[in-house]
Amino acid sequence: MTLKQIAELVSGELIGSPEAGELIINGVSGISDAKDGEITFVSGAKFTSKALDSAASAFLVSEHLAELKRPQIAVKNPQLAFAIMLRHFYVKPHPVMGVSEKAHIAAGVRIGKDTTIYPFAYIDEGSVVGERTVIYPGAYIGKGSIIGDDCVIYPNVTVYNGVTLGSRVILHAGSVIGADGFGYIWADGRHNKIPQVGGVVIDDDAEIGANVSIDRATTGSTFIGRGTKIDNMVQVAHNVKIGAHAIIVAQAGIAGSCKLGDGVVIGGQAAIADHVNIEAGTMLGSKSGVISDLKRGVYFGTPAMGHREWLKSSAIFQKLPDMKKHIQQLEARLAALEEQKDKGK
Amino acid sequence: MTLKQIAELVSGELIGSPEAGELIINGVSGISDAKDGEITFVSGAKFTSKALDSAASAFLVSEHLAELKRPQIAVKNPQLAFAIMLRHFYVKPHPVMGVSEKAHIAAGVRIGKDTTIYPFAYIDEGSVVGERTVIYPGAYIGKGSIIGDDCVIYPNVTVYNGVTLGSRVILHAGSVIGADGFGYIWADGRHNKIPQVGGVVIDDDAEIGANVSIDRATTGSTFIGRGTKIDNMVQVAHNVKIGAHAIIVAQAGIAGSCKLGDGVVIGGQAAIADHVNIEAGTMLGSKSGVISDLKRGVYFGTPAMGHREWLKSSAIFQKLPDMKKHIQQLEARLAALEEQKDKGK
Amino acid sequence: MTLKQIAELVSGELIGSPEAGELIINGVSGISDAKDGEITFVSGAKFTSKALDSAASAFLVSEHLAELKRPQIAVKNPQLAFAIMLRHFYVKPHPVMGVSEKAHIAAGVRIGKDTTIYPFAYIDEGSVVGERTVIYPGAYIGKGSIIGDDCVIYPNVTVYNGVTLGSRVILHAGSVIGADGFGYIWADGRHNKIPQVGGVVIDDDAEIGANVSIDRATTGSTFIGRGTKIDNMVQVAHNVKIGAHAIIVAQAGIAGSCKLGDGVVIGGQAAIADHVNIEAGTMLGSKSGVISDLKRGVYFGTPAMGHREWLKSSAIFQKLPDMKKHIQQLEARLAALEEQKDKGK
Repeated sequence: MTLKQIAELVSGELIGSPEAGELIINGVSGISDAKDGEITFVSGAKFTSKALDSAASAFLVSEHLAELKRPQIAVKNPQLAFAIMLRHFYVKPHPVMGVSEKAHIAAGVRIGKDTTIYPFAYIDEGSVVGERTVIYPGAYIGKGSIIGDDCVIYPNVTVYNGVTLGSRVILHAGSVIGADGFGYIWADGRHNKIPQVGGVVIDDDAEIGANVSIDRATTGSTFIGRGTKIDNMVQVAHNVKIGAHAIIVAQAGIAGSCKLGDGVVIGGQAAIADHVNIEAGTMLGSKSGVISDLKRGVYFGTPAMGHREWLKSSAIFQKLPDMKKHIQQLEARLAALEEQKDKGK
Repeated sequence: MTLKQIAELVSGELIGSPEAGELIINGVSGISDAKDGEITFVSGAKFTSKALDSAASAFLVSEHLAELKRPQIAVKNPQLAFAIMLRHFYVKPHPVMGVSEKAHIAAGVRIGKDTTIYPFAYIDEGSVVGERTVIYPGAYIGKGSIIGDDCVIYPNVTVYNGVTLGSRVILHAGSVIGADGFGYIWADGRHNKIPQVGGVVIDDDAEIGANVSIDRATTGSTFIGRGTKIDNMVQVAHNVKIGAHAIIVAQAGIAGSCKLGDGVVIGGQAAIADHVNIEAGTMLGSKSGVISDLKRGVYFGTPAMGHREWLKSSAIFQKLPDMKKHIQQLEARLAALEEQKDKGK
Repeated sequence: MTLKQIAELVSGELIGSPEAGELIINGVSGISDAKDGEITFVSGAKFTSKALDSAASAFLVSEHLAELKRPQIAVKNPQLAFAIMLRHFYVKPHPVMGVSEKAHIAAGVRIGKDTTIYPFAYIDEGSVVGERTVIYPGAYIGKGSIIGDDCVIYPNVTVYNGVTLGSRVILHAGSVIGADGFGYIWADGRHNKIPQVGGVVIDDDAEIGANVSIDRATTGSTFIGRGTKIDNMVQVAHNVKIGAHAIIVAQAGIAGSCKLGDGVVIGGQAAIADHVNIEAGTMLGSKSGVISDLKRGVYFGTPAMGHREWLKSSAIFQKLPDMKKHIQQLEARLAALEEQKDKGK
């Protein structure tokens, strides 16, 4: 593929000598990994020095980097152009394999056309699997669950009964959708299980990472909004509602009945206590712990506080021994004054 | 089912007009999800306003809510009555399917009557599976493991060799029971594996969430007590002993050789360092970190401290910049006094 | 096995009466679990009292414990000797079972000799499985992945396409190697997926715990060094590079593109932000959070700081209410002085 063709594909402006347009590009790679003959991208000024060191033959940039004496393509969003190039060069569609005879399809399952179901997948009674969806080995789809079109269910995923996935949903390996919410009542000297009879609904274009757990609702539905992306090993408890286009980073935990608005970003290992509402657009830092509702903003720490305030308090935390000494010095000076005073009398 | 019949089922007192007892109830739901024709429950005064807004036709309450002009059933524990109603209306037993020809049952496995083993389940040599137990697709039971009666092993669970489950134990999907404890000795320039040759014992009525990891003991057994409930993605390391009726919330981690007494409650994402003893009845807050033994009490923070003390210290943490300014102001005032003193001489 | 034979096996010095060498030892166990007829080990002075209480018939020790009136074997590293004994008494090799007809081996897969592939394992096109490797039920090996010699892949492990394992690698149940890295670009009102077209390389002698997630690289490879040991439910994000002989404890999370040097030790539930470099030999405490590069050292807290400094600051944190009162008392004394001053004028 020539650089000129690439410029067209990403709607960019080719910067370089006339013959640069005829340069053959045979791959795409990150700035440190790129080899001769490949194109990469530069996102922001701080990567300029890395670009100078890179072996790449061409660069996707947001504006012309004059010191970089190699061909460039200027685009609005170099990272997006990079993603387009990666897709163009490397991404092959999942092959259409049909329904394997070694899969187990229970009675009354409806399967769309061009759908692939691998050996050792188990689709239980009354389920529906949409068109062009791919279900990998070891995946389990429970009774009456509905899987939309163009979904990808990776190996060893478990979808319990009564779960609904929209279209283009991706579930990575080992994830468990619809296990019982964690609800018990203490009575008669033991924890009595509250039956979890609700479901889970995951809307279109959501992507769920590996080994994630999304519990079914007690009644009603646990809900993951359209286009929301959930990283590996995230916990989503029963009756949680997450809006559209949210980002939940790895190992975060969201307790029961929380509501997260559209576009929230929850950092890795953050935790949100039950019944908390978080306004749309809120960003919560990694490892933070939230125990009460949050208005739109940027928060950090446990209990969560404003990000800037957290930075200031954390800086002082690191200097607490100095602060303690300072107070002791002040006290000594104060005692000296008091003594003089007493003597003065 | 009439309201009168429900009152009898939950041993409650019907409050309402005489004809209320004949009201037909066709479902049970949470207070916000309930529809006309359904019953819900009200737990505590703070949910009274939600009850007024609810579309439910009847309510399980702990005492008569006069402002709620709809039929009520007064019971000692409304949430428990709600659980009983959910079970009555919705919970169907796992169907008895027998042992699938598509499951793999190794030589010398003993299987109780009315047991269900789904396709693609693998039961290894010398194992015992009790009566009425259900083993879902993709579950693996290692050599010589013993599964009690009335257990439910959800899809893609892995039970290694030499694990013992009591009766009525539930293992949710993706959980791993009996993987090797994390034990190495540094010698000869590498980590040498300490063989993990012990087992895991999970007592009756325990329930283990999705994607949990409970490691086997080095020697002896890792032990989970009767009626203990473990939420999703909890880590239980080798040789841990957990008492009866404990609650371990999602993503908590318990390091090797810890002992947790009966009825402890461990919050989400909490961590307990190795060889720590926690007294029965102790509550440990979410995200707390414990590095030494805890007497019965309520703890928070890292290192864990009394809950009230943690709340006070955390409140001051959030105001540390103010405290720092305050100290600077005091110093300025002190310096002014000192200067006057010097001038005064 | 006689105690004399054991002393030879562990290259130790037998301490005891001449007839002690003929003592028959029939098992090995931890100090609290050991029974009559078994040998155990004593690691350090603080376990001496436990040794006195132990029912063991003999002890592996680093130096003679005179107060312990039972036979002892003095060795350089008692714990290592214990591991050798455990292996000798209890560890049986995984049986060589061949390739099951109930496994699914796709076209063009190359399988070494004496390799075991259990029923319901799925090996996809173009993969290579080395000699004497064992692949348990429900494991999935994606297209073109390479598994070295003497590996053990436990049940329900998922290895995506294009992953490379060295020799003697152990993957515990439920782990997911090579799921897509968590990378999106916000454009046109949605998160656009950055194709993750790199791979994962896990070097010789690494051991990966249960339910771990190691993501594939965007381009290039996520890398786990030789002899590195990763505990359960650890998150390793895309493009992370971990050196040799590292220890990563359960539930730790390592964000994208981090570089960890040889021999680092990362505590449980610790988190490392993306693009952070951690020097070889660094130790990071449990639950710590790292947001910038770390030179070799021992760190704790969030943001991570020196361990000793963290201990001091944490101790003061617990006493912040006292510090606040102290400041108020100083202010009162200061105000009294000021008032006297004013009166004095």
